Amino acid sequence: MFENEERTNIEKLGEFGLIDHLTKNIKLTQKSSIKGVGDDAAVLDFGGKKTLISTDMLLEGIHFDLAYTPLKHLGYKAVQVNLSDIYAMNGTATQVTVSIGMSSRFPLEAIEELYEGIYLACDKYGVDLIGGDTTASKQGLVISITSIGYADEKDIVYRNGAEEGDLICVSGDLGGAYTGLQLLEREKLVYMENPNIQPDLEGKDYIVERQLKPEARKDIIDLLQDMQVKPTAMIDVSDGLASELLHICKQSNKGCKLYEEKIPIDPMTYETAREFNLDPTVCALSGGEDYELLFTVKQADYDKIKFKLDFTIIGYITEPNAGCNLITKSGNMHELKAQGWNAFGSLQ
Amino acid sequence: MFENEERTNIEKLGEFGLIDHLTKNIKLTQKSSIKGVGDDAAVLDFGGKKTLISTDMLLEGIHFDLAYTPLKHLGYKAVQVNLSDIYAMNGTATQVTVSIGMSSRFPLEAIEELYEGIYLACDKYGVDLIGGDTTASKQGLVISITSIGYADEKDIVYRNGAEEGDLICVSGDLGGAYTGLQLLEREKLVYMENPNIQPDLEGKDYIVERQLKPEARKDIIDLLQDMQVKPTAMIDVSDGLASELLHICKQSNKGCKLYEEKIPIDPMTYETAREFNLDPTVCALSGGEDYELLFTVKQADYDKIKFKLDFTIIGYITEPNAGCNLITKSGNMHELKAQGWNAFGSLQ
Repeated sequence: MFENEERTNIEKLGEFGLIDHLTKNIKLTQKSSIKGVGDDAAVLDFGGKKTLISTDMLLEGIHFDLAYTPLKHLGYKAVQVNLSDIYAMNGTATQVTVSIGMSSRFPLEAIEELYEGIYLACDKYGVDLIGGDTTASKQGLVISITSIGYADEKDIVYRNGAEEGDLICVSGDLGGAYTGLQLLEREKLVYMENPNIQPDLEGKDYIVERQLKPEARKDIIDLLQDMQVKPTAMIDVSDGLASELLHICKQSNKGCKLYEEKIPIDPMTYETAREFNLDPTVCALSGGEDYELLFTVKQADYDKIKFKLDFTIIGYITEPNAGCNLITKSGNMHELKAQGWNAFGSLQ
Repeated sequence: MFENEERTNIEKLGEFGLIDHLTKNIKLTQKSSIKGVGDDAAVLDFGGKKTLISTDMLLEGIHFDLAYTPLKHLGYKAVQVNLSDIYAMNGTATQVTVSIGMSSRFPLEAIEELYEGIYLACDKYGVDLIGGDTTASKQGLVISITSIGYADEKDIVYRNGAEEGDLICVSGDLGGAYTGLQLLEREKLVYMENPNIQPDLEGKDYIVERQLKPEARKDIIDLLQDMQVKPTAMIDVSDGLASELLHICKQSNKGCKLYEEKIPIDPMTYETAREFNLDPTVCALSGGEDYELLFTVKQADYDKIKFKLDFTIIGYITEPNAGCNLITKSGNMHELKAQGWNAFGSLQ
């Protein structure tokens, strides 16, 4: 990957030289960041607000494949995945810590590329990088990020607040990240069989970007605030719509009706799923990694949200005994089941 | 390792079943823990206090060897290593998030053992586990922990506050964890050459425990508070005394004089170092992983600390042009150099 390029051996920099090198341009911008990188711990001050903390681990071979994932994109995505959890609490993300384990097969330029993506994401979302850990790895590339944010107590949205009759909404569209992954995996196989064939991703930018460079939906949080709509429950879509909706229903002790025809699917996602003989609805329900926000709102808020194009009403919350159901396009009712791809899963 | 024992396949539990299983007994005890495991992010409330955050990553083959590290000890140590950073800020540790990547070669019983150690450490230090991530790993075992704590602004001790004339103090004794590691590595080699020979660790409990089951020095923080002594600078000893003292001097823009004869070394550490033809002083200076606290105090506080057995005065801070020097037992002066073993190093 870096064979024809300049390579700087990490060991030449030394342990603390590497840290200085990677962090020398950090400028703390959050008022709550009192002290960032450079001591035993970072120091934060949220005044009277509640602090939000979330963490995710990304492992090579499980969560990403360096054969088709540029390191800059990977760094960007790793931050987005974490910020998404803070927004899913209706909070403001303010800081991240980033820990990286890397084998010596990576030159300094590779780590720099990874950090370039990390800093780009931090910059774009106004988040400070305040600490972390860098270590050699005998295994593959390991990325662990913890995100920190805040919210007023009255604004926090948990997963367990959905009430009977609430409308189920989801931002953006679903299934794109998963079909993008299928495409990348196919082109990888083609390339491995014949390295002279260039990957054919033409016209597929949108779904490839959904997979490689997702955006956490801070804009939706801002929009809801502008509209003065506080969701009753919220979660981000990392494992697929079905899994996330079941989390909300289980934790709220409610049932739901989800309408297949309402699930927002981009035409390119639809078309690509068909190419792969996949059901586009299944891609949306179980594909995951879309990092959209799934939330429920009171029916009383319907007038405020009905003309918004940024999210779609896809069903409603029922009493628990009705179960969690998908109403298909043909009008049949099926029990909603989670078949997320995710390995083991997250505590948060 | 688990061949003759009962094995439960992790995949049978499913992703969320595993999380439920590992977290079902969590009881939040910290007033500041508003919401722990089970939503997109944990929610914390530190009132008007400053929040402290630190993070560390432990990778199999780099930071630990499962050939001689019981998983319970590993879980315990992983938490201690993190809490140590919060205490090194003169703070109170209150929460941790724990992310684990594990290959399927581990049965559920192995993860349980790891978590047993994690919970034991949390319990003993009064810290809540509030979130994390569990994932399959194609590589080895990966552990990433973020610790959270708080302090009043006036109590926080950074690395950069040392002044000329300040006394340099270190808690406990040094070099034990490193000589314990040498012993474990030797016995591993013996065992690999002839599996019928049982490891010979008799009488070496102390240094083996220093390596496998270190304790973060919360007691020293409590003691300093009782004595009404606020250090001017502080750091925990993870990479070795020399490296840590150089951090304090560099960040404080000062020099130091460190006296070899004052460096606290346990007789068992001394004797074992000699067995391995190692200089005990070098083990203390560069061995690392002792997780003692290194701190500087004003000379005016000398009367308060002079009879304390929990820590030792090992030198004093000088003006920067004097450099950082070690005065040997024979009275010679050498420039102090860091030769920590640590791979790449930590941002904090």
